[in-house]
Amino acid sequence: MSTSPIRFGIIGCAEIARKVSRAISLSPNATLIAVGSRSIDKARQFISDNALPASTIPLAPYDAVLDHPSVDAVYVPLPTSLHVTWAVVAAKKGKHVLLEKPTALCVEELDVILQACRENRVQFMDSTMWMHHPRTEKMRELITDLTRFGELKTVDSIFTFLADKDFLQNDIRVKPDLDALGALGDAGWYCIRSILWANSYQLPKTAVALREPVKNNSGVLLSCGAQLLWPDGRSATLNCSFFAHLTMQMTVIGTKGTLHVTDFVIPYEEGKCSFKFVSDAGFTELVTGWDPVPSKHEVITDLPQEARMVQEFARLVKLIKEEGKEPETKWPEISRKTQLVIDAVKKSVDNGFEPVEIIG
Amino acid sequence: MSTSPIRFGIIGCAEIARKVSRAISLSPNATLIAVGSRSIDKARQFISDNALPASTIPLAPYDAVLDHPSVDAVYVPLPTSLHVTWAVVAAKKGKHVLLEKPTALCVEELDVILQACRENRVQFMDSTMWMHHPRTEKMRELITDLTRFGELKTVDSIFTFLADKDFLQNDIRVKPDLDALGALGDAGWYCIRSILWANSYQLPKTAVALREPVKNNSGVLLSCGAQLLWPDGRSATLNCSFFAHLTMQMTVIGTKGTLHVTDFVIPYEEGKCSFKFVSDAGFTELVTGWDPVPSKHEVITDLPQEARMVQEFARLVKLIKEEGKEPETKWPEISRKTQLVIDAVKKSVDNGFEPVEIIG
Repeated sequence: MSTSPIRFGIIGCAEIARKVSRAISLSPNATLIAVGSRSIDKARQFISDNALPASTIPLAPYDAVLDHPSVDAVYVPLPTSLHVTWAVVAAKKGKHVLLEKPTALCVEELDVILQACRENRVQFMDSTMWMHHPRTEKMRELITDLTRFGELKTVDSIFTFLADKDFLQNDIRVKPDLDALGALGDAGWYCIRSILWANSYQLPKTAVALREPVKNNSGVLLSCGAQLLWPDGRSATLNCSFFAHLTMQMTVIGTKGTLHVTDFVIPYEEGKCSFKFVSDAGFTELVTGWDPVPSKHEVITDLPQEARMVQEFARLVKLIKEEGKEPETKWPEISRKTQLVIDAVKKSVDNGFEPVEIIG
Repeated sequence: MSTSPIRFGIIGCAEIARKVSRAISLSPNATLIAVGSRSIDKARQFISDNALPASTIPLAPYDAVLDHPSVDAVYVPLPTSLHVTWAVVAAKKGKHVLLEKPTALCVEELDVILQACRENRVQFMDSTMWMHHPRTEKMRELITDLTRFGELKTVDSIFTFLADKDFLQNDIRVKPDLDALGALGDAGWYCIRSILWANSYQLPKTAVALREPVKNNSGVLLSCGAQLLWPDGRSATLNCSFFAHLTMQMTVIGTKGTLHVTDFVIPYEEGKCSFKFVSDAGFTELVTGWDPVPSKHEVITDLPQEARMVQEFARLVKLIKEEGKEPETKWPEISRKTQLVIDAVKKSVDNGFEPVEIIG
């Protein structure tokens, strides 16, 4: 393959685009060449505020990025309600799509996006950064090791943060016309993804929402939870909320091992992080302690997880662009499963906490 | 007060009695003087197997302990179905009662025990050891500190262990005539206690069992979970199981802080243990890390938690015996609340996962 980097455009100058623009710069096989906004001034401002190279082209409106012949791929951090429109236009114009989560308001919308990507042979990936951290791979090795972990039994995943008054009134994540999935689509996305990840992406058969979720006056979920069930007795619980202190915890329990991680979405530190794992734990004589106790596993990364995400996405785009390969189907499939579970949890909230069957 | 120790008798030579007999020996204000069993040989064997002092009196049957004039207090590790009988006889004979958990098969039975204890002015305490670890007090200081923790929002508590085939067939905890509450009364007791503890023992208004609990052929719960709800929006989830690897995790989340502990029932080590706490956590610039990150808090104890439990119980007994004080009502009240929640979870399992109101 050539050494020329994949050329990114960004459509939408959201706060999260600052982090991803840096990730594109850090990724060895990617370069940011254009920033698009509804106004050219806003695009210019974003380039200047984030000290992007002077060569970065400010463009407006979004179409200008999608029409730009040098742009290979776009990162789309727009509000969720706009995803289906812009991701489809991007795909139709042959641009590969790195899409912010939640991917869509419902799986039917996501299917429209995925179909457009397939038809136009462009790569699709959602921007769930922690998937790409080397820690995630290291954790997978352990929880798929039958000798050390046994069979998966349950996953417990929590992501909460305390939204302030301004957020609760003005953030796109509380607006029914922008990010109507609220806390479920935002924090809950990560919980559901972590549960699917631990289950090797096998879909649960059933979702049952926990009682007393909190909605705002517009009906947007600000706090909710759910139980997920698999046919063989595996289960999971998730809790997401805008009302509790920053917590992001995943606990994965098999018959023979337990994995604890308390910073799974955003590691405490960029270059180094850890998790705890214990296998075949029992008690000491008279049950006065554990033997063995959990071990701390540290993982170092030279590239932050979001840059590794861009790198992986750009690698797949290069294979399509330069070697005529087909788009990788794994990433859109994982996105779709996550969205299916999101939809089922929402449906269970809406139908009075009755179990909702999930069909893949 | 005198320096003479409180004299304990044990009725029932269960495995857990080995740990508690050591705890009585370690406690500076207690001494074990008698061990009762259904057969005198079994009592003698227990004394010899556990290298108890030669002065320890083997007695049979249980009544012999309760009739012994030198016994001040009894530790009762009998199967749950026998608690109401023997705890009541003990109280009527003026013996103070340290009772294994779960305290009873239902709150109505526990109320019979508690009434007998009140009427006979004897101290009642259940044997939930972790309550007495100095770590528990240290954690309470943090989660009741409004500045650092804010208001409590949610608690997530898990206690699982992998029972082997022999346990699942023969242990008293799977027998409907012995410990009919199964995993809920055993591991679930600790989860519910931890949730009540974090809520300063304010009872939830509602319990809703999670779906697909597992029962054995006799209808004894081997795995289950529940959501608990408070009138002001606080919530909790619990999961207990005999089918998953040893895990005992409590996460307590307020508006301003998060507490993580992964060995709350039995600390990893006897003399030293820890928990993690973080207050006012946010993200670094560009959300590439946390600031601050959780701190590890270590707690040292010279006496193991079970010895501290015996010490506290003996202290209260001494106050009654030597200073004419009334029994401490805090401990039976906490037991009763735990039992009430156990009963509500069981009722919700039995009524098809409908919410069950909890009335104190």
